[in-house]
Parts: sequence; C-alpha cells; structure tokens
Amino acid sequence: MSYDKAAFDAYIEANRKRFLKELGELIAIESVAADKRDTRPAAQWLKGRFEKLGAIVTLYELPDSESPVVMAEIGDGDKTLMIYDHYDVQPETPIELWDTPPFELVERDGLLYGRGVVDNKGELMVRIQTIENWLVTHGELPLKIRFVVEGEEEIGSLHLDHWAEEHRDILKADGCLWEGGGRDENDRISMAEGCKGIAYFELHVENAAYDLHSSLAPMVGNPAWRLVWALASMKDEQDNIIIDGYQDHVRGFSESLMQRIDQLPFNAERMKENLGITDWINGMTNAQAHRRHFTEPTMTISGFESGYTGVGTKTIVPAKAWCKLDFRLVPDLTPDLVEELVRNHLDKRGFTDIKIVRLAGEHPAMDPHDSDVKQAAIDACKETFGEEPLISPWFTGSGPLYPLSVMLDIPVISAGATWHPKARAHAPNENIFVKDYFDSMRFTAALFDIFGRS
Amino acid sequence: MSYDKAAFDAYIEANRKRFLKELGELIAIESVAADKRDTRPAAQWLKGRFEKLGAIVTLYELPDSESPVVMAEIGDGDKTLMIYDHYDVQPETPIELWDTPPFELVERDGLLYGRGVVDNKGELMVRIQTIENWLVTHGELPLKIRFVVEGEEEIGSLHLDHWAEEHRDILKADGCLWEGGGRDENDRISMAEGCKGIAYFELHVENAAYDLHSSLAPMVGNPAWRLVWALASMKDEQDNIIIDGYQDHVRGFSESLMQRIDQLPFNAERMKENLGITDWINGMTNAQAHRRHFTEPTMTISGFESGYTGVGTKTIVPAKAWCKLDFRLVPDLTPDLVEELVRNHLDKRGFTDIKIVRLAGEHPAMDPHDSDVKQAAIDACKETFGEEPLISPWFTGSGPLYPLSVMLDIPVISAGATWHPKARAHAPNENIFVKDYFDSMRFTAALFDIFGRS
Repeated sequence: MSYDKAAFDAYIEANRKRFLKELGELIAIESVAADKRDTRPAAQWLKGRFEKLGAIVTLYELPDSESPVVMAEIGDGDKTLMIYDHYDVQPETPIELWDTPPFELVERDGLLYGRGVVDNKGELMVRIQTIENWLVTHGELPLKIRFVVEGEEEIGSLHLDHWAEEHRDILKADGCLWEGGGRDENDRISMAEGCKGIAYFELHVENAAYDLHSSLAPMVGNPAWRLVWALASMKDEQDNIIIDGYQDHVRGFSESLMQRIDQLPFNAERMKENLGITDWINGMTNAQAHRRHFTEPTMTISGFESGYTGVGTKTIVPAKAWCKLDFRLVPDLTPDLVEELVRNHLDKRGFTDIKIVRLAGEHPAMDPHDSDVKQAAIDACKETFGEEPLISPWFTGSGPLYPLSVMLDIPVISAGATWHPKARAHAPNENIFVKDYFDSMRFTAALFDIFGRS
Repeated sequence: MSYDKAAFDAYIEANRKRFLKELGELIAIESVAADKRDTRPAAQWLKGRFEKLGAIVTLYELPDSESPVVMAEIGDGDKTLMIYDHYDVQPETPIELWDTPPFELVERDGLLYGRGVVDNKGELMVRIQTIENWLVTHGELPLKIRFVVEGEEEIGSLHLDHWAEEHRDILKADGCLWEGGGRDENDRISMAEGCKGIAYFELHVENAAYDLHSSLAPMVGNPAWRLVWALASMKDEQDNIIIDGYQDHVRGFSESLMQRIDQLPFNAERMKENLGITDWINGMTNAQAHRRHFTEPTMTISGFESGYTGVGTKTIVPAKAWCKLDFRLVPDLTPDLVEELVRNHLDKRGFTDIKIVRLAGEHPAMDPHDSDVKQAAIDACKETFGEEPLISPWFTGSGPLYPLSVMLDIPVISAGATWHPKARAHAPNENIFVKDYFDSMRFTAALFDIFGRS
C-alpha cells in the first residue's frame, strides 16, 4: 500500500504559508559557524521544533564549540533511517551583492531567497514538515527516523569523526538519507552515493614588525611574494597539483566508475551560462571537464589577503600575508596526509617561514555500492516525479559522510529536490524554487513509505 | 653676516606651543589622497596660512582632482629657492595598530605622533614657521621663495608632470629644496640629490559571475591562482625581476657612483632592529643589501585581495582577484615602458585575462651634480649641527623630482632634520622627535641665509 497522496497534498496546501513562515524563522537565525555566530540558538530552535513533533531530542555538546549535535528520534518500525542535515550556514559575505537581506526569507518570482535556503535549512525543514504532515494525515510513521543535525558542516565538521566514533552504538541504522539532492542543468533529479573529502588550511607568512615603506623592498623580504612563490610551487599553470609526492596518493578509479561518470548527462552550455563563464580550465572539452570535475583532487585558493587593499595607492612592503586553501580529496588522500605533504614540500624549498593552520578536514567517501536506501530513493523519485533519477557515484563537494556512513557501515544516499543549478550555494542571493520545496516533501514522504516497507 | 640665531631661537621658545598647535590643525585634516578625502580643505587651510605670512598664493586646479597645487611666493632677492612639499598623506590603515588616533597630533615621551607628521606635514610646517620667525625677527627674507605644495604625492603625483610642463616659465628657480631630509641609523644628517621613479599598477582578474562553490574547482578557472601564476612569472624566488626585456632597460651606474654609495655609512644592525627583521633577502651581507637598496629596481606586491578573508572556512572559487604592484624605477625605466613590458609579458604567457590599471607613474631622477643649493644645505648643516652631512646620490623612495628639477633644469637637494629611522612613514604610529622639529627650523633658517648670499 502506498501512502495517501491526496491527504498529504491537501495538508501541504492548507499549511503552505505556515511552513514557509517556519522556514523563515530558521533562516533568520544567523547560524554562521565560521564566526561562531548564533549556532546555539539554531540548535535550541530545532530542539523545540523536533519536540513539537513528539521526537526525543538530545543535544550533544562538542569540545570548544557552540554548535551541539542535535539528535532527534521519532517513529518505530523494522527499519531505521538516519537523516543527516546541518543547521549552520556559510558567511553571508560579500554582503553588498545580496539583493535582499541575507537572513530574511524573501519570496520573489517563484523563488525563495536567503542564506542557507538551499544549503541546508530548506531541505531540513522539508524533512521535519514531512514528518508533521505524515503524523497528522497518516498517524504513525512507517519506520524509525533518527536525525543527526550538526552545526559545523560549513567549517568542515571538525568534531563529527570523534563524536560518531564515540556514539557508534546508538547510531546503528539501515540506511542514511543525506543532504544535497536536487535538479541538474537538464532539470533531472540527481542523487549521489558519496563525496570528496576536504582539507582546509590557512597559510601565514610574516616578516617585519609593521608595514614598511616600499623603498626598502630591495633589502627586506615581502610576505606576499613569499606566499605567491610558495603557492606557485604547489600547482602549475595547467592546474595540476605538483606538491611533492601528492599524486602518489591518488588511487584512481575503476573503468566501470569512469564509465558511470561519463554516462551522467552534463549540460555544459547551460552550466557555463549559469556560472557566467565562457571556458573551462585549459580549454578542456565538455567531456574532459565533466570527468575532471568528478575525479580530480583540487587545491583552491579560497581567500588571499596582504597589505593595503583600499582605494588608490599605498606604497608598502606588507608585514604579513595569508591565504585560505581548500583541498578536495579523492582516495587515498586524507587531511593528515595533505598537511604533512604540504609541510614537507614547503620546508624542502626553504619556505620554513610559512605557517600552516588547519581549519577543517574530512576523509573522502567514494566507494559506492547498492543498498535498500538507494533503491527506495530511486523508486520514490519515479513515483513522485515520474522520472528515473541520475545517480552520481559521489558528489563533488564534501561532507561528513565518512564518519556517519563509511565508518559505521551504513549505506547512504544524498537525495531530495531542493537544489538546482542556479541556487548559488555559498554565494550571495542563495535561493530555491518554491515549487521544489513542496515537491521535495512529496518525494520525502514516498521515500519514508518505500524504505519502511523494504 | 650670518642670521641672528639668538633672536630666532628666542622666537621659537616663545611660540613653541602655538607652532605645535598649528601643526596639529594640519594633521587633523584627513587629507588622504588615495580615497580623495579632505585634500581640498588642506589646500584651503594652507592658502590661509601662507597668506598670513604675506605670501601671494595661487591654487592650480588639476583635472579630475580634489588636490589643487598650492603655489605661494614670498620675499625678494637675487636668488629664488623653490620649496617642494605635499599636503596629502598615506591612508591610516591598518587603523587598529595605532596607539593614538591617527589624525590627532599627540606628544608623548619627546615624540610627536600623527599621520603625516614625518611625511610631509611636519617639514612643511617647519618651513612655513621658519619664514614667520625670520620675518618677525629679521624683517625681509634674504631670497625669493616659491613653495610648490601638491596634494597627490602619495598617489604618485599623477598630474604634476603635465602641470610643470605647462607652467615651465613661472617655475624658474636657482635651486630647489626638496622634502624628506633627516637622520639615519647612525644619527647622521642625511641628504639626497635625486630619487627613484615609480610605476604603480593594479592587476585585476575576473572569471565567474559570482563566488562559486569550490566543488567546481576542477573545471572553473580561479582568478586568485591566475594572479599567483602571473606574478610568479614576473619575479623569481631570488627576488629578481624576470619580466621579459626588463633588465635590458636598466642602464646601471658608474663606478664612481657605486663608490659613493658604498661609502655611505650603513648601520645594518640598528636598521634591522628598527624594522623588526632578522635577515636581508637571500641572506645578503650588509654591504650587498646596502648597494642593492640604492641601485635595484623593485617590483613590490603592496596589496593582494581575493575571495573570503574573514574568520574560519568558506569554500569558494573566488570570482575575482586583484593586487597592487609598486615598481621603483632606475634609469632608463619609465612608467610607460614598464606598463608596456608587463602587458607584453602577460600576453605572451596567455594572461590576456589580466587587466592592468595604472594608478601612478614618475620618472627616476638619478643624475646628481654639484650646485649652490646643495652647498648651501651642506654649510647650513655644519653651521646648525656642527657636523658634515651625508649626501646620498639619491633617496630610495620616489617623488616628482623629475618634473620639478631634471625637466626644468633646477638643481635640487632633499634636506632637513625631521626624518629618523623609527619614524614609521606610511605605517601606524608615524612620528618625529619634538627636538628635531625645532632643530629643523634652525637648519632651514641657516639654509635661507646661506643660499640667499651665495
């Protein structure tokens, strides 16, 4: 027996406005983990919201953190589904590029705007409100659900490895529904079974006690130049990472995985248009770019600052320079290994003055395999949207899949319908379609139903 | 007949407080040319001050500028002395490193603090107040003085070449007293007969329409990396400028000039201590560093900004990156030539996406020769301080000496007593010694006297 779609849909229609108002409340909490702003109030708000559902809620404190893990358990059944989401968001900078205030949910032309609306507060509220809907329209849930909602995802889930290891016994589940599903450039529902890892560092260089008059440049070392030279020694102009020994740790992928990737549709022209670019790196073909997107480890300068960055001229040798480096990891790279390789590479070239500060680290989780939860997501997609989803072997971003799935041996699928190609995750004017928000509820209900019966 | 020192000194003693109060008024005007802040009010204030002396004052407007050239003429005699100073100052950033408000003249432990106090408002007020003193204590000036006080020095005197060319006829003088004299690390009065040139650019790179999620890094070009690679192609890790063809335009210096430089005293250890550094670039010896300081053209990253520069992690491919580059020029490099060489170098390597914006340019003025005004400065130093000054063939900073001296064939000397090795020009806590301020008046009076009689 399938679930009662008519009743479910009627409840959505009757509660549309309140559902969005509730999402707006969560968006309004400035839970930016990067600067430890209001993450705890967001956790508290969620605790209240889960308790209104009748869930048993526990907040797990993490060391030196204002972002407790919110665990909420509700329902009963043979199957247990873990749901992973996060309540923290990326910083709203550059603030001047937002058309409306970042922490205000604004509906305009069929879209919902606000920081976190796609990543990941929207999807989290969809899942919570789906449960409310089910409980009202169907009574008991057809399965047991355990939410694990963290507040440090955007800063690399610093403590989740250790926390999951410690709570291994109470985290057992038959499958895990991950964040981040949605539509691709061809408007096809796209799911994923894993993700790349990440290592995030700052590099710092200092020299003089203060910014010096630049007439001294022939004699006195310039931290900005030091950092430029060090960076240029680590990635070449063709975008290859040339850190000593780095490529030795890139395992590569089986031919069958490569074929799966090649077979994923890729609307390159629409994507370029959405991103506002004209070419891929090195003038790659679309096929090359597509394969590289999935398989290549990255080393990204996400930020760089040195000296005078105001208007006009200031003639100084800066006293310091620093940058933010975001490495996306494929097997068998790990955060520890990357830090060690970078340190050795720099030291060998005399860059012992460059200090490395690690801000985040996550293992890659890129070994997909078949599972009930994946099949339930596929079937729920067919039932809800009348279409076969695309299944990527992994998504190209990162997340703590490793501690919550690979490490605990829980099959995982990232599936949903809120993401879309112009959603501007991490950027100004982050948005989702209103329609996708409510469609995603229907998909989630179908998934609960099918997985509960599987 | 020498001037009446006793009367001159008595007037200083009687007016000490007012003199400093007046300097404080000028410091309080935030005449930061870089962001076009309050330069015009500074010019107006100076007009009033010069008129109080009885000078004939003209403000010359410059195109698209809020910084008119202030010309003030006073006195009569066989000799005409041009005096060059500037009323604009460097930006006060980083503001948090100032111990007292930057635009407030603060006296503490025998020092005067404030933005512009050494560069160049202090020296300018010394020269104005010296004339007041002379007029009250001696009557008529022993020479004709023509001040040329500009308000764009800190942004590279953009319009002064053209202005001087246009006003060639009314700028005739027998000698020119430049800004910037003072004491070196050995507490010796140091003068200079020229300066390096400067070319100041911003390089800009843009790619995507907005900061992208860094999962796209394998496909989408990163402006920060583009800029890093472009920069690294222009200067090597040993600090040599390797822009194609650059070194072909470095004429080199005669053996006699090299010897003059080598013979200048250089208290390397004290300088390092003042700057808070432990080593020179490439572990050079002190002698090598000293020679390089005077003779080497430079290419300095004075600022660099891209992507997220806040606290914590933000995982983006930045949409843009830019830097500020300050080139100090030796003969026969010119701003036009440097721009052309950089453009060609970048284009040849495929960096056609990098945009060059020129913010400032000045020719080098590095062909010293003997003159009456130089001799007057030497004699004034001996008479005032009882010591022989050190004469550098040029100073290692830049200034518009070319249009006001070389181009007009007016001999020039940079001489005074306000600069000192810990003055922190262009940096937070800029300062001069109170004692040097008043000693500099005595020196200036002696110079007027001697040059008037020469």
